[in-house]
Amino acid sequence: MQRQNSTDLRENKWFMVWGSIVMVLIVVFLKSNGETPEDLDVPDLSNLGYDPCCSWPCENNGWCMSLPGNNYTCDCAETGFIGKNCHIPANWKSWLATKIKPDAETLHNFLTSNGWLWAIVNNIKPLHNKIMAYVYLSRGDVVDTPVRFNGGSEYITLESYYNETYYARSLPPVPKHCPTVMGDKGPTDYPDMDVIIQKVFLRREFKPDPHNTNVLFTYWAQHFTHQFFRTDQSKSTPEFTKGNAGVDGSNIYGLTEEDRQHLRSGIDGKLKSQIINGEEFPPYLRDVPGYKMEYPPHIKIREEAKFALGHPFFALLPGLFAFATIWLREHNRVCDILKVENSHWDDSRLYETARIINVGQTIKITIEDYVQQLSQYKLNLSFEPELTHGTRFQYDNRIRAEFVQLYHWHPLIPDTIKIDDNTSYSIMDMAYNNKPILEHGIDKFVEAMVTNRAGALTNRNHPYPTVVVLRKTLEHSRTMRFQSINNYRRKFGMTPFTSFIDMTEDEQLAKDLEELYHDIEAVEFYVGLLAEKPGPSVTPLSMVSIGGPYSVKGLLANPICSPLWWKPSTFGGEVGFQIVKTSTISKLFCNNMAGKCEGLDLTFRIPDV
Amino acid sequence: MQRQNSTDLRENKWFMVWGSIVMVLIVVFLKSNGETPEDLDVPDLSNLGYDPCCSWPCENNGWCMSLPGNNYTCDCAETGFIGKNCHIPANWKSWLATKIKPDAETLHNFLTSNGWLWAIVNNIKPLHNKIMAYVYLSRGDVVDTPVRFNGGSEYITLESYYNETYYARSLPPVPKHCPTVMGDKGPTDYPDMDVIIQKVFLRREFKPDPHNTNVLFTYWAQHFTHQFFRTDQSKSTPEFTKGNAGVDGSNIYGLTEEDRQHLRSGIDGKLKSQIINGEEFPPYLRDVPGYKMEYPPHIKIREEAKFALGHPFFALLPGLFAFATIWLREHNRVCDILKVENSHWDDSRLYETARIINVGQTIKITIEDYVQQLSQYKLNLSFEPELTHGTRFQYDNRIRAEFVQLYHWHPLIPDTIKIDDNTSYSIMDMAYNNKPILEHGIDKFVEAMVTNRAGALTNRNHPYPTVVVLRKTLEHSRTMRFQSINNYRRKFGMTPFTSFIDMTEDEQLAKDLEELYHDIEAVEFYVGLLAEKPGPSVTPLSMVSIGGPYSVKGLLANPICSPLWWKPSTFGGEVGFQIVKTSTISKLFCNNMAGKCEGLDLTFRIPDV
Repeated sequence: MQRQNSTDLRENKWFMVWGSIVMVLIVVFLKSNGETPEDLDVPDLSNLGYDPCCSWPCENNGWCMSLPGNNYTCDCAETGFIGKNCHIPANWKSWLATKIKPDAETLHNFLTSNGWLWAIVNNIKPLHNKIMAYVYLSRGDVVDTPVRFNGGSEYITLESYYNETYYARSLPPVPKHCPTVMGDKGPTDYPDMDVIIQKVFLRREFKPDPHNTNVLFTYWAQHFTHQFFRTDQSKSTPEFTKGNAGVDGSNIYGLTEEDRQHLRSGIDGKLKSQIINGEEFPPYLRDVPGYKMEYPPHIKIREEAKFALGHPFFALLPGLFAFATIWLREHNRVCDILKVENSHWDDSRLYETARIINVGQTIKITIEDYVQQLSQYKLNLSFEPELTHGTRFQYDNRIRAEFVQLYHWHPLIPDTIKIDDNTSYSIMDMAYNNKPILEHGIDKFVEAMVTNRAGALTNRNHPYPTVVVLRKTLEHSRTMRFQSINNYRRKFGMTPFTSFIDMTEDEQLAKDLEELYHDIEAVEFYVGLLAEKPGPSVTPLSMVSIGGPYSVKGLLANPICSPLWWKPSTFGGEVGFQIVKTSTISKLFCNNMAGKCEGLDLTFRIPDV
Repeated sequence: MQRQNSTDLRENKWFMVWGSIVMVLIVVFLKSNGETPEDLDVPDLSNLGYDPCCSWPCENNGWCMSLPGNNYTCDCAETGFIGKNCHIPANWKSWLATKIKPDAETLHNFLTSNGWLWAIVNNIKPLHNKIMAYVYLSRGDVVDTPVRFNGGSEYITLESYYNETYYARSLPPVPKHCPTVMGDKGPTDYPDMDVIIQKVFLRREFKPDPHNTNVLFTYWAQHFTHQFFRTDQSKSTPEFTKGNAGVDGSNIYGLTEEDRQHLRSGIDGKLKSQIINGEEFPPYLRDVPGYKMEYPPHIKIREEAKFALGHPFFALLPGLFAFATIWLREHNRVCDILKVENSHWDDSRLYETARIINVGQTIKITIEDYVQQLSQYKLNLSFEPELTHGTRFQYDNRIRAEFVQLYHWHPLIPDTIKIDDNTSYSIMDMAYNNKPILEHGIDKFVEAMVTNRAGALTNRNHPYPTVVVLRKTLEHSRTMRFQSINNYRRKFGMTPFTSFIDMTEDEQLAKDLEELYHDIEAVEFYVGLLAEKPGPSVTPLSMVSIGGPYSVKGLLANPICSPLWWKPSTFGGEVGFQIVKTSTISKLFCNNMAGKCEGLDLTFRIPDV
């Protein structure tokens, strides 16, 4: 009881302190409230002559409803704000947030600097847990779940939710009846795409990434995201997906049950493989009858250079072939471990459990190695799903069309890759060509991925050979009538850009963009993402602040992270669970290379020399 | 400050009281813990000679993992229990729960009696809110989200989650390698199905429902559930669904976009309709080219008796035709209201918004009118989605194969329905026959649904004409290797039945079941659900305790209930939102009948005479 009484005393003291703070805040609130009476600052939109929702008047994620006679109302429910334009804090919390909550840029700078502070925080487990839980939940909160919009309509529909063949959308399309393609700002129609590509995107000379990001990172991005970016090319618009909206391992195992059966050996849970030069590789395509890969018919490729990989697109590049090979070896390695623990399990149970383990490893590595490098946070990102258990976090994800757009990261690709110190391959050398691996060996190729520097993910650094993809990306965003980059910044809690120079910090680029778009509110989404000035992360700030939530949400909303899945039996027992919990990009590769990475510091950064 | 100090004093007092309680509890805990040291009570399963998981040793929803050499271990993570069989409370909360938490039967009896107490509770809004939030969350908790199992495997797989063409499962199938079809209890193989049907199911003479449930209720059950019970008949097993796993309005509007387009008029958001005898009805099937209904080819039906309804199955019965007609009229009525509010909206926006409103009305009526009658709770069930906002509730649902089984409620069907006081129609008279409506008029038919009493949902009350469906139901549960009714009771927090007489409270039935199953642990799921003694609700206790969570979860997990959907703009504005918030079964029908229900007390109970 003694101890409790002293606690009471302490609480009394704190009560005094907090009481005083609250009193002060009340005064400030009443005062500031008195200064800005409701709707005094609301611009009059009654004489626009068109739907006022085209000027996006509702703030703080309020929803603009057009009314008859070019009138409008904002639905402010659940925003924490009230007033004509949801611009007045409805309660203490919202008001305080407007006063003390740092903007995304400040927060981001804080997380990417002050290394000494974070070194301390990283070592105080309860505090670190609190911060990680905040990261998970705050990121999850800005990704609407259940989804509300898809490209099919300008307003909320049940179809957006139930028709999962659509990519979801964070923001609905700009209404067709608006005066300009971005609402009511900027030019009536989109600016000339060739000029945009020329002035904003094309690489003059290779800009290297300043954060020591390597090509292994680039290929992780590509290999990893193709499991859930699966635009249905058979449709007339880019708004449909064939995928499962999550980290389902389909980039390793195949998307459909039929595909997966093709790639399974049927023995001890393992995937089909073959031995070449004493090492395990995926089977030749000719040895998996009925299985399809996207080898282009017009390019002559030897049958001994065509392989059956988890994703038909992975025919494209030797880096993808390398990842496919490493994951294949890892799957079969995990099966061997599971078999020792569970000698009575049949082929299917070993296979299914190894698949769950590899999905777990994928998430672990993505958060702790890949996103850590991407964000350049000094906070150690950790994969601890239990921090979301019992909270409002929703274990349910859908891929957004905006995420697909955003993840076009071709500037990361360097002009050439040097292998084994004496051979260079250009981008075009490597298309549909596994020679760099088959000739030098996978160990040498992996070493090359680790030691070659990626390009800077910024403007005027898009490599020429992939301009065709860039053009398609821009076309897609127009087909889907994406809202402006500033509207996306608002949606994701960022301050909108105030000018072209504020966006780019580059006079020439600002001038070029102003000529194209006239108004900073009219800059297209993908153009804005890349035109933005470099920041402390591998991507510019908008990209990491919009992509981050999609990414964290997608990773943590995976079923394996939920309370009823995240336990040893899901992973075949404690041994399998530990594989997931201790996985790193280094282990994944080094366990599966003949040389075991000897002398190679394998991470997503080029090693210090 | 004065007030706060006195609060502190009060808190001190409470602290003393609580302190004492906690001290007593510690003593009791240590004492009871001392009496049952860990694993003393655990039966030795090491010499069974087969996989010990077949005897389901893990308690409290622990997961049994078979180990090599016929050994096992229980994964107790997230159960709140520890020990060999997850039988020892791991913490205070679990321990207290085992001591003071009432079992489902006690709780259920409490909720269905003490009318005076609930009359008070129903009127104290904050208390009522607390209880409703508890109902929503506790029901949601027992329906695993994300799902873990489907019929495809005996253990957790990613396929269970990602392959949504499967119905999910609350419990996986009984492993094929177990000694008996129920694990290790009861006969090796299933008992003779004909004997079961004869002794447990078949109606001797009509048993009327004792809770005044009417035939309108029966048809709501059928019309409502067919939007999400959509077993894919093209598959070789009953484990697959074509549906959307939720209240999507597909029973009104059609399942696919193609179907929906067929049924839309294209004008003002409305559905196609026709006028017969001055009243609005669905269009003839012949007037909707390309649309398909399940009218059997071997029965001769006039073209003027075939209609195009939202669900092809609704050809079957006039009650379904009546519901289809009322919902069609309601949709078109709502479109008219929305059009007044939003004269600038096009056909699609009116249609989509009316559809959202009708999904909202469906959920509102199902909870407040239908489940209220079904449960016979004296607690007023209320549809208040905001009570789940910000909680751990998951807005994501999948239909379980167990729910499909459970909802076979043919005993509700009376042998005959009397219309207009002078005409009686038997069950068979009504198959594929809309005459009862077209001849008497829809007002008279609705009156008949309201005034005719449903059958008792109990054993030996299954009407003979639908035995073919019953047989299929039992066959399906065997194909899917369902676990026993007692395992389902454990899963849903109920005490397992201890004997056949405990289950049935009927000596003859208990004797018959014992001859069939030998062991109470071996009784099949659906057989147990129906064999159980009647309780205070319309269904027996297991049925309402298992079906209730599926139902509540499915209703509240609908996207419209989530924080970002549940606001006026989703429903086209405040007017549409109010339609949902004030909807009742009486309004739905009376607003859409020529006679406006004059003189008819339309609810899910036969009116008092």
